[in-house]
Amino acid sequence: MEIQRNIMDYDTVSLDDDNSAVVIIDQTKLPGNIELISLKTAQEIWDAIYLLQVRGAPAIGVAAAYGIYILAKGIDTQDYDTFYAEFKKQKEYLDSSRPTAVNLSWALNRMEQVIIRNSDKTVPELKQLLKKESIKIQEEDIRVCRTIGEYGLSLVKPGDGILTHCNAGKLAASKYGTATAPIYLGQEKGYGFRVFADETRPLLQGARLTAFELYASGVDVTLICDNMSATVMKNGWVNAVFVGCDRVAANGDTANKIGTSVVAAVAKQYQVPVYICAPTSTIDLSTPNGDAIKIEQRKPEEVTEMWYQERMAPEGVKVFNPAFDVTDHSLIAGIVTEYGIARAPYSESLKEIFAKKEAIEAEGV
Amino acid sequence: MEIQRNIMDYDTVSLDDDNSAVVIIDQTKLPGNIELISLKTAQEIWDAIYLLQVRGAPAIGVAAAYGIYILAKGIDTQDYDTFYAEFKKQKEYLDSSRPTAVNLSWALNRMEQVIIRNSDKTVPELKQLLKKESIKIQEEDIRVCRTIGEYGLSLVKPGDGILTHCNAGKLAASKYGTATAPIYLGQEKGYGFRVFADETRPLLQGARLTAFELYASGVDVTLICDNMSATVMKNGWVNAVFVGCDRVAANGDTANKIGTSVVAAVAKQYQVPVYICAPTSTIDLSTPNGDAIKIEQRKPEEVTEMWYQERMAPEGVKVFNPAFDVTDHSLIAGIVTEYGIARAPYSESLKEIFAKKEAIEAEGV
Repeated sequence: MEIQRNIMDYDTVSLDDDNSAVVIIDQTKLPGNIELISLKTAQEIWDAIYLLQVRGAPAIGVAAAYGIYILAKGIDTQDYDTFYAEFKKQKEYLDSSRPTAVNLSWALNRMEQVIIRNSDKTVPELKQLLKKESIKIQEEDIRVCRTIGEYGLSLVKPGDGILTHCNAGKLAASKYGTATAPIYLGQEKGYGFRVFADETRPLLQGARLTAFELYASGVDVTLICDNMSATVMKNGWVNAVFVGCDRVAANGDTANKIGTSVVAAVAKQYQVPVYICAPTSTIDLSTPNGDAIKIEQRKPEEVTEMWYQERMAPEGVKVFNPAFDVTDHSLIAGIVTEYGIARAPYSESLKEIFAKKEAIEAEGV
Repeated sequence: MEIQRNIMDYDTVSLDDDNSAVVIIDQTKLPGNIELISLKTAQEIWDAIYLLQVRGAPAIGVAAAYGIYILAKGIDTQDYDTFYAEFKKQKEYLDSSRPTAVNLSWALNRMEQVIIRNSDKTVPELKQLLKKESIKIQEEDIRVCRTIGEYGLSLVKPGDGILTHCNAGKLAASKYGTATAPIYLGQEKGYGFRVFADETRPLLQGARLTAFELYASGVDVTLICDNMSATVMKNGWVNAVFVGCDRVAANGDTANKIGTSVVAAVAKQYQVPVYICAPTSTIDLSTPNGDAIKIEQRKPEEVTEMWYQERMAPEGVKVFNPAFDVTDHSLIAGIVTEYGIARAPYSESLKEIFAKKEAIEAEGV
């Protein structure tokens, strides 16, 4: 008898027991198969991020942190400068796997800072410190998601309808997810939310991942195509939109999965508030606005062939396939972080969030 | 050597040479295979409409007209009342195949009127008159689409970007299509439009049909997923949206393929005008507004399984799958008919369109 696996029993990203591999759920195989794969080489880690075997800004950050630790562990030298030079090379390589999510470079920079701050340490000591930092990044991610969930939950009430786009769930982070954190916390409290999951073309993360993990968790979830959001909102079924993000600019403009700005325009039409769930690691004050965010373009075959039994568009037809879009800050009702909810004007409130973060970190809380 | 078939060389719907079958391009096989199929029985005609082997409001109307003629031709009686009773039964059956598009019942009612108006005729004469009427419905469709194209063309200029949703093209009508009519007429004049085709989930009519027929015609067409419309509009690539419709209510509310109201909300955000291309056969003044339009709900498997090599959503997950949505009249910049362009307030302008139509018909022009 086949034992039914439940996706909620597996870690999205983890470090294996002998610290030799990043273990991930291969998300390209979901929902059909729950397969864990071990990534050991730089090429394997790069490919896993590029091919979306691991995806979601926070999860990419954690995978990159564990990944660069494992690569650093394998650097065969006792010399600091040689070690750092090789680390830097590997770091830049991993950083090139996806351009839009800021967590990738954020996590890699945090790991690099460990080496920079500890130039007095031996290489074996540095390797230990890198391990600690990577684990800390994941532990923080779990806490951060939970806190975002608590703030998010304050924005809705029992029985509300919630729409989400793409997957900013457990499969996009270590636990709880970002956009799903209020849903999971509400579920614990018996809030009885009714959730609508956009399927999210072309890669169907909403159908394959969000509907999958929410359904496995017993949440009342209904799958819709991306072009049905107006209908469910017009029917009065949606009280709030919660989405994740890949990068929030200093003015609140938010890059997230392609289609987020469509949901936001529709939500405006039907007066539904849109909340961005954003760990501060995803907020990039050095990016002034959305125009400065590089949008990854992906191959046409994702639209014309992938998933399908047969070609679904004529051969040779042009395809435009941006992986993300930027939602204008004017369409966003709030940005939910682990330090509270930022409201417009975001150019001020996001700075306040970071001031609060620094003050709390300075207090050592 | 295989001869490359061009979709533009085939009629979407036609009557076969010995008046015994409706011949259609099986649109469920596109773009992979261009297959013509012959429909002879009531069941075959009903299935072809229900299964979307023939789809698009005007094409459904033409197929239903030819279909009911063929079924009437097979009624073995010389008695008017028996003939009419059997006709009515077949008509009601065909009319039940799809609920949203008004052209289906419009065409069937026109055919019924032939029998009602000619109660003095013999059954063989009635059969001849029904044939004439069905051919007239198709010939009118071609003229109507061309005229809509001419009015539509007056709304754009050479080099413009045009976005369309679903397929309101040649494959949805007899020739030119409705939403594509301005594009094809512009193509004849060398206008050099840049067209964006929404793929249109779940049945991908935009990818499979619109991108296919425009590409086959040499139009500069780019395929996008439905959730990319905001990006192309934000980039300034779209000057106008042209879509077809399944039913326009007296106040201008328009039922069309699911997602049209999403495009309309996005277009409003980016100040792009949305034009509905609507033969008057699609305008239903007896439907006061969008709330009175019945929206067909289709089976979940279209979203979760269809087209795919493997299941793309967890088994058992709830799915909401409306086939159409209603675009509020406030989001519509103009309704392009064969008697001119109606502008808000539509409750007045649509009546004027019909007054013009009646005046012209009364003049016998």
